[in-house]
Amino acid sequence: MTPRRVVIIGGGFAGLFAARALRRSPVAVTLIDRRAHHLFQPLLYQCAAGILSEGQIARPLRAVLRRHTNVRCLLADATDVDVKGRAVHARRPEGGSVVVPYDDLIVAAGMRQSYFGHDEFAAHAPGMKTLEDALEIRRRIYRAFEMAESATDARDRRHWLTFALVGGGPTGVELAGQIREIAGHTLDREFRTIDPLKARVLLFEGADKVLAPFGDRLAGRAARALRDLGVELHLGTRVTDLDERGLTVKERDGTTTRHPARTVLWTAGVEAPPIAGALARATGAGQDGAGRIAVEPDLTLPGHPEIRVVGDVMALDHLPGLAEVAMQSGAYAGRAVRHAVEARTKKPKPFTYVDLGSAAYISRGRAVVKAGPVHLSGVVGWLAWLFIHIAFLTGFRSRLGAVLSWAVVFASGARRERAFVLPGTGPAQQDGVTAALREP
Amino acid sequence: MTPRRVVIIGGGFAGLFAARALRRSPVAVTLIDRRAHHLFQPLLYQCAAGILSEGQIARPLRAVLRRHTNVRCLLADATDVDVKGRAVHARRPEGGSVVVPYDDLIVAAGMRQSYFGHDEFAAHAPGMKTLEDALEIRRRIYRAFEMAESATDARDRRHWLTFALVGGGPTGVELAGQIREIAGHTLDREFRTIDPLKARVLLFEGADKVLAPFGDRLAGRAARALRDLGVELHLGTRVTDLDERGLTVKERDGTTTRHPARTVLWTAGVEAPPIAGALARATGAGQDGAGRIAVEPDLTLPGHPEIRVVGDVMALDHLPGLAEVAMQSGAYAGRAVRHAVEARTKKPKPFTYVDLGSAAYISRGRAVVKAGPVHLSGVVGWLAWLFIHIAFLTGFRSRLGAVLSWAVVFASGARRERAFVLPGTGPAQQDGVTAALREP
Repeated sequence: MTPRRVVIIGGGFAGLFAARALRRSPVAVTLIDRRAHHLFQPLLYQCAAGILSEGQIARPLRAVLRRHTNVRCLLADATDVDVKGRAVHARRPEGGSVVVPYDDLIVAAGMRQSYFGHDEFAAHAPGMKTLEDALEIRRRIYRAFEMAESATDARDRRHWLTFALVGGGPTGVELAGQIREIAGHTLDREFRTIDPLKARVLLFEGADKVLAPFGDRLAGRAARALRDLGVELHLGTRVTDLDERGLTVKERDGTTTRHPARTVLWTAGVEAPPIAGALARATGAGQDGAGRIAVEPDLTLPGHPEIRVVGDVMALDHLPGLAEVAMQSGAYAGRAVRHAVEARTKKPKPFTYVDLGSAAYISRGRAVVKAGPVHLSGVVGWLAWLFIHIAFLTGFRSRLGAVLSWAVVFASGARRERAFVLPGTGPAQQDGVTAALREP
Repeated sequence: MTPRRVVIIGGGFAGLFAARALRRSPVAVTLIDRRAHHLFQPLLYQCAAGILSEGQIARPLRAVLRRHTNVRCLLADATDVDVKGRAVHARRPEGGSVVVPYDDLIVAAGMRQSYFGHDEFAAHAPGMKTLEDALEIRRRIYRAFEMAESATDARDRRHWLTFALVGGGPTGVELAGQIREIAGHTLDREFRTIDPLKARVLLFEGADKVLAPFGDRLAGRAARALRDLGVELHLGTRVTDLDERGLTVKERDGTTTRHPARTVLWTAGVEAPPIAGALARATGAGQDGAGRIAVEPDLTLPGHPEIRVVGDVMALDHLPGLAEVAMQSGAYAGRAVRHAVEARTKKPKPFTYVDLGSAAYISRGRAVVKAGPVHLSGVVGWLAWLFIHIAFLTGFRSRLGAVLSWAVVFASGARRERAFVLPGTGPAQQDGVTAALREP
């Protein structure tokens, strides 16, 4: 008899943990993702900031699942679900589509950056969700200092040295801290015309505090740490216009202000990918404002016990978009399938999320950590952040590399991964220097 | 009195060594490059093959020259030289041009990939000169295995598993070896449908041997090592047509053969960048077939003692395009300017190249090294290669990292830098998993 077919859409934390939970089950798993790698999202901003390389935060899914012999990885973009025919339709990167039949479907498609209806902003203000985003942000940050150095007039130079970040969540806060550290530490003594320290970092947030979910006390400390670092906080502001030369924001009192800035980064919101809408239409499942799919307490869809939705794209008790939630819900769904395969009669307990806490890195020696009643900040918070991330990097071969990179940055400010490519450029001049030590 | 102005075009080995030679001179150096980084070309193929990260082979020029307080780095594309007005015209990446006056000009613009008049080949067969090239090749190599795995018909699968390399020089040989090692070692047990070991690697070379400049004995050993590795050598062939589905070659006997291959990489030839032609026109200097500029024994241009041409783009005694030549000629030009500044009356000795040898890596434990009368191959050659490259990586903070990366690849075949981005893709599904451990 052919093994039960389980299809998982998405190779993030949720999809990966679902696949792992099925390791010892007699099932045939197909993991569909439009990227070949699993991304360690919590450290994506460090790739953007030139501390870690792509390989240190992105591992090939098939390498991660190499020993899971019942899992097959498929590089494709899941476009639709045929609920009656029980099959997922997907598009391959080089064209051509595939139909993948399933007995059980686990949707872990995640969420993507949202520009709140202003998709035209995206071209001028990259988000921070993908490896592409991180490399684009790395390019923009380091290129801005180069452009400021070679600028021929003072105004132009000032605008190149102004960085605007939209969104006061962990990602926005971390990027703001990183840019100030690059300006004040990493680039020390490298420029002759500009003083990188003069770089202005403006952080725009709609709420009246950054990191609001961390609670007033930690949020206040984070704000103070950011101001000490030289970050200019613009709270209670809403972006009304944005282009390659800056942005316009509306203050609480209704006044609008224009802020010139040649680098604008966007970390403000998320929305569900198209596959979520397709699934909702096909199953009649409900969606919240951002497009998340409403699930039953056992993470299945109403009337579709064979379909489970997990991770960020799952709407359940307003759980946050956290890797921790993704891991736990993914693992729960995987176990549920395993129990069904083993034909257990006992009905599974509903999914319950165990909050293991959360952390945000602000700058060298400063972070905020919230774990239930425990609230940490400053150096203690930073040590907790370090411990947590080293622990979670386990299984990543780059764990040692990451720790070494962090040690070097902390001590000397030097960042190894600063190289950026200029899109659309031909062979570079220095690249003409050919194969050293090799061609006789 | 204002210091003498020295302008260096190109931040490769030649330009860098020229700048270093001027460190203690009372001159104002401007180093112009269209990239912000110095590229360690000899290991570029390891970046393409997923062993090293961009940051391990590309360091920001201003970081390298941080302590050279008399050097100013300018990220711009040198487009022309005003010989009468003694000024270099350059274009900034974001638009806007700059004019940089000089008293002494050192041209180290290097060479770029040549498709022998078939520039249309470039779109289907990336070269191996720039960081962009290496990342594109990395993407194509690893994507090919993904496409083969998800291919729906056997023929398509076969073509995705066929890699064609044009050019039997060190770069071509090294890439061929790398692809076979990836197929046979790195990807072991990662695929369910295909057997990566079945990947075919075809190496096309116009001469009747690979690595001809290494001499018959080493060339013969290299050929044998490649064949042992499973590389199919097509010697004495000339590419007559090339597209995204393969290439057509003309054999010595005039017969033409079509070789289907979804991945084609080009390492066959080099040509001078436009700035070389501009300089030749402006000075009346001669150029060889590839556009290299003919120089006097002291590396100046006839009638222009203030202009020196060094590195790959210099034509002198048919010296090869080698980092070693670039370093020595660049340092010579820098010293010559220093002596002129110090107003030394003694006429400088003509430039003489000291051949320190050359090496080519073939596969794990196999390399060929030629240093004058000393010819090494096999394990001995490989150890020599290792020693030379560790020595030359000195000053690169990534030296330790490189050695660690090599140790891991050698022992387990695992390569850390396999992550590739698919151009033109939006937010990936797994990327929807947001900031783990952070957002409460």
